[in-house]
Amino acid sequence: MSLLVVGTVAFDAIETPFGKTDKIVGGAASYIALAASYFYKSIQLISVVGDDFPNAFLDTLKAQGVKLDGLQIKQGEKSFFWAGKYHNDLNTRDTLDTQLNVLANFDPVVPADFKEPDFLMLGNLMPLIQQQVLAQLTKRPKLIVLDTMNFWMDTSMDELMKTLSMIDVLTINDSEARQLSGEYSLVKAAQKILDMGPKVLVIKKGEHGALLFNKEEVFFAPALPLEEVYDPTGAGDSFAGGFIGYLAKTKDISFENMKRAIIFGSAMASFTVEKFGTERLIGLSQEDVEDRVQEFVDLVQFDISLV
Amino acid sequence: MSLLVVGTVAFDAIETPFGKTDKIVGGAASYIALAASYFYKSIQLISVVGDDFPNAFLDTLKAQGVKLDGLQIKQGEKSFFWAGKYHNDLNTRDTLDTQLNVLANFDPVVPADFKEPDFLMLGNLMPLIQQQVLAQLTKRPKLIVLDTMNFWMDTSMDELMKTLSMIDVLTINDSEARQLSGEYSLVKAAQKILDMGPKVLVIKKGEHGALLFNKEEVFFAPALPLEEVYDPTGAGDSFAGGFIGYLAKTKDISFENMKRAIIFGSAMASFTVEKFGTERLIGLSQEDVEDRVQEFVDLVQFDISLV
Repeated sequence: MSLLVVGTVAFDAIETPFGKTDKIVGGAASYIALAASYFYKSIQLISVVGDDFPNAFLDTLKAQGVKLDGLQIKQGEKSFFWAGKYHNDLNTRDTLDTQLNVLANFDPVVPADFKEPDFLMLGNLMPLIQQQVLAQLTKRPKLIVLDTMNFWMDTSMDELMKTLSMIDVLTINDSEARQLSGEYSLVKAAQKILDMGPKVLVIKKGEHGALLFNKEEVFFAPALPLEEVYDPTGAGDSFAGGFIGYLAKTKDISFENMKRAIIFGSAMASFTVEKFGTERLIGLSQEDVEDRVQEFVDLVQFDISLV
Repeated sequence: MSLLVVGTVAFDAIETPFGKTDKIVGGAASYIALAASYFYKSIQLISVVGDDFPNAFLDTLKAQGVKLDGLQIKQGEKSFFWAGKYHNDLNTRDTLDTQLNVLANFDPVVPADFKEPDFLMLGNLMPLIQQQVLAQLTKRPKLIVLDTMNFWMDTSMDELMKTLSMIDVLTINDSEARQLSGEYSLVKAAQKILDMGPKVLVIKKGEHGALLFNKEEVFFAPALPLEEVYDPTGAGDSFAGGFIGYLAKTKDISFENMKRAIIFGSAMASFTVEKFGTERLIGLSQEDVEDRVQEFVDLVQFDISLV
């Protein structure tokens, strides 16, 4: 059994109403792998960094059980860098700088012993690169989860649609679901998107929780009301990591189990936003995670018997 | 046992992306009384209309068990009128016209046999009028729920603060909670508002559900993801009506029972938005209400046992 994670490992510089960071470690795959590692230990990472990337963070990933054989380190090149500034409501942000660097020519190579993963998490990346990973697998994974964003809808819609036809679960946010479907109602949007390939759709609504759809059912998971949200960066990736990590751990991809997985994903996201970058996802205990999940149970649990 | 409802009975003209109405029946107390009537039959209304108001709607209220002894009908005067236009997202709206008419000099009179209600719902109105009703009661109700809005925070803050010190449960929306508290975080906002008098605070987030706070606990109820939202007018009032109607029916004002009441309130709001005005709140069956509540149960029910 294994979980393959594909996505960026990179630098971010973040400004929120609560403070400002220099270059810190970020990237979709960093958050996904860390969040998943609290549930599942056989994780392999596919990504690329420059020689400017800190070994300390790679050691952290290794310590969490993440295998880095698929991480290319490009000598003489720089890691992907993104800088952004969040508005006061933390729901919207401006991109201040994007330097593709090593990502510009990223040619993902799946190591021989990871060509048959049971679970595959395709973090946000160019749809073509996501396809290149899929093409190298020698057996279809039991579950393929894809995260993407509006940027690829604007610039690579044909490639994105092709990728969508190859996956099982899509995770996007509410405005992306509206853009992809052309429908304002998320219920209608979900049905249109489920016709594009995915069997399951997760619509992430940030502080307003997340919706899980298949063709027949819908489930809603709240976000935890927090006193302080310092930095929303990586929340969606942490959510995806907790989601697929829990599914990989339990080896159960039923809709019922995906409901539980969404709660675990939401719990991991709720940690991430409490500090800048990946800081809060490092060094959590099993008890921390369980206590946090219990807060979600308490938040929405009510007892109505109609019969 | 009785439930006293105070608020406007009025005309609205509504424009949404889905259509436009002429003058139709609206007003906070209309929605509150209708929604509550599905749970509780001993309802008394305090309000005022002009002689232009349709008897047919008053007959509808009576048929639902709402007693109108406290409804003043002012001969030769016109009913309160509001016209508004919702933006495409249905979360924001512009007021196109407000004609106070009979509301300008409204002097509420509580009939003798309704001066000792067990439950009191003060719908959105001038805080001073809400106080005038409270002053006429000869016994403090078991539970006083107050709904208000940003307009009174802008224009009558001192009076509003005084009213807040006299009630048990406050229902406002998220932006109003932020305005009233000066805090962006709803968790922090809730704690500040609970210091102003109310023992319980409900923060309504429209399509994003509702939060229930007391000093120690928090509960979240989702909104139902709907295919079509035709008209959000009255959703908050229907929510409040379902909430207090269920509490009056069950005679239980514990936090645990308020969780259930919020689900019933959310169910009533989900009906209201499906058609223009009060239309959808008329003629529902007990089964309609129970089926809708079951949809909420199904929407958020998950099974995680951590121990």
